[in-house]
Amino acid sequence: MAHRIAVIAGDGIGTEVMPEGIRALEATAKRFNIDLEFTTFEFGSCDYYLEHGKMLPDNWFEQLKGFDALFYGAVGWPDKVPDHISLWGSLLQFRRQFDQYINLRPCRLMPGIKSPLAGRKPGDIDFYVVRENTEGEYSSVGGKMYEGTEREIVIQETVMSRIGVDRVLKYAFDLAQTRPRKKLTSATKSNGISITMPYWDERVAEMAKQYPEIAVDKFHIDILTANFVLHPDWFDVVVGSNLFGDILSDLGPACTGTIGIAPSANINPEGKFPSLFEPVHGSAPDIAGKGIANPIGQIWSGAMMLEHLGYKEAGDAMVDAIEAVLSEGDSQVLTRDVGGQGTTVSLGKAIAERI
Amino acid sequence: MAHRIAVIAGDGIGTEVMPEGIRALEATAKRFNIDLEFTTFEFGSCDYYLEHGKMLPDNWFEQLKGFDALFYGAVGWPDKVPDHISLWGSLLQFRRQFDQYINLRPCRLMPGIKSPLAGRKPGDIDFYVVRENTEGEYSSVGGKMYEGTEREIVIQETVMSRIGVDRVLKYAFDLAQTRPRKKLTSATKSNGISITMPYWDERVAEMAKQYPEIAVDKFHIDILTANFVLHPDWFDVVVGSNLFGDILSDLGPACTGTIGIAPSANINPEGKFPSLFEPVHGSAPDIAGKGIANPIGQIWSGAMMLEHLGYKEAGDAMVDAIEAVLSEGDSQVLTRDVGGQGTTVSLGKAIAERI
Ligand SMILES: CC(C)[C@H](C(=O)O)[C@@H](O)C(=O)O
Ligand SMILES: CC(C)[C@H](C(=O)O)[C@@H](O)C(=O)O
Repeated sequence: MAHRIAVIAGDGIGTEVMPEGIRALEATAKRFNIDLEFTTFEFGSCDYYLEHGKMLPDNWFEQLKGFDALFYGAVGWPDKVPDHISLWGSLLQFRRQFDQYINLRPCRLMPGIKSPLAGRKPGDIDFYVVRENTEGEYSSVGGKMYEGTEREIVIQETVMSRIGVDRVLKYAFDLAQTRPRKKLTSATKSNGISITMPYWDERVAEMAKQYPEIAVDKFHIDILTANFVLHPDWFDVVVGSNLFGDILSDLGPACTGTIGIAPSANINPEGKFPSLFEPVHGSAPDIAGKGIANPIGQIWSGAMMLEHLGYKEAGDAMVDAIEAVLSEGDSQVLTRDVGGQGTTVSLGKAIAERI
Repeated sequence: MAHRIAVIAGDGIGTEVMPEGIRALEATAKRFNIDLEFTTFEFGSCDYYLEHGKMLPDNWFEQLKGFDALFYGAVGWPDKVPDHISLWGSLLQFRRQFDQYINLRPCRLMPGIKSPLAGRKPGDIDFYVVRENTEGEYSSVGGKMYEGTEREIVIQETVMSRIGVDRVLKYAFDLAQTRPRKKLTSATKSNGISITMPYWDERVAEMAKQYPEIAVDKFHIDILTANFVLHPDWFDVVVGSNLFGDILSDLGPACTGTIGIAPSANINPEGKFPSLFEPVHGSAPDIAGKGIANPIGQIWSGAMMLEHLGYKEAGDAMVDAIEAVLSEGDSQVLTRDVGGQGTTVSLGKAIAERI
């Protein structure tokens, strides 16, 4: 039976790296005898917005809900549409309406990739950030008062629910359970943010009781970001609220030098709705149209998608191919950001061939 | 006329580094003929809390408001008092009640200090983080509902006022004005946090009109933390909300390897109330009582205090003395964290003598 994949390339370099993501997936599907069926959608991009006055058609939920997964490029083009409109109108809708309450991002030193940190080698850094993906600081509740006057105030509410917090914690503890080090770090700020964050800590302590074999620690977000730089080897599974997870899952790949190539998965663990797989990088208007974007983030996201669909071996083969091509370091193949003079297509093809 | 300084050592290593801060200040006062008068207070510590059931006496405001500055060590000892109680009961009260709406922290590569970043030398990194220090995400508005049930939710409001945002922006733009590069970077997250952060952006754009000679850019906080690691040389003055500023002003010093020695100033620019000067590091229960804490953060905070009181030359002399002692690298003098076998006192004395 075919796995039906909805493809939304989005904006900017999203449209350039997506074909390479698909190329790699098709090569993998062939090798492992997996039946993938891709359906492309034009919506979820700023150009669509300019034409239709909205990021998505009214019936997007109906159109997409039957798919087995969504494969997304990148969205956003601030000169065309303000970010908070393009993002809330697309990506953040998918995350919420499809209840993709887990955002999962690996932070790993890869061969051939230079880490900005001094003296770290592949193997030294290898952890996951698990981010709550549907509530918390990303709320739509709040507003403005005394508008346009000196006394103007704006208010936005952070909302955390026990259901929302517990389910992301459970996922993170379960993930830690599968890892050799069995360690979980919680990101908090309960010394400053005095209502939601102590609650987060409480729920972590409660959940920890059910996982006696997991070593649990916590750091306030300020010193935690410092420790990502100073002691990235301390971490195994790091769990955080929507905002803290967002920060840590950019900072983590930055520390491993992989911010331009890191993948991410937006997961609905129950499989009630499709999960969404996308590179961490954005649409990068500054290099869009030049054909030089690195497609590894898109390809690696494809690997996470296959793993999610039950093909762990196939996903691993994709990551192995990425690592192999990076290790070879052929400058005709690699894109500029990783020290070569190649193109999106040359790097994408090399990985697909390797698979 | 004497400058009256209120001294609050607080908890843990706060009580160990404070005497060295005072030693250095007294040496400087002697050399530059400045009249400093120190008055020590026991409150503002967890031990005070254990005895009195509160962090501060009821009349703390009256007791302190006439001082020219507050010189603070570090507060917090989670095993005695939960952090959100000890912090909200002391430090955060001072910041609010004394309207210290600016939190200023230098991020600078110092000689003799190893940066965790590859290939960076003193001079490569030198910027300030200006943090809003009285409102924003650190609010006390919110609460819990359906408590103790599956449906439990907690809500905390981020509150930004035009007055609050504009005044910190003005301070940051004014600071950028005094710097050779005249560059200001704003920390935002308007693509995800859809009410307060677009408002922050709006106010930055508005303020920028009054400073045509300042080059302004902005980054979302996630990629901004990444850029602190990847491109710390990009930054000159970075301004952020209370939470974002908090994160960046730990991450910045972490990138320069100075997290254990960085100073901070909590400033009421109008001088209506005393400003407060404290090291960035906390009370560090794990190394408290051993006499090995590095006193440079406390001493450097003293330098910022002198500068604030109008003695820029004297403040610079203190920083020069710190740099000189670090450059010499005498391992009998330096504390462990900077590669020596010395003590809090040996390092403090060496700096005071140098002054
Ligand atoms: C201790 C804590 C409440 C405080 C803060 O978050 O403001 C600290 O991290 C700081 O930066 O001074
Ligand atoms: C684009 C933005 C809204 C988004 C987020 O903050 O969630 C992005 O940074 C991410 O991490 O996927």
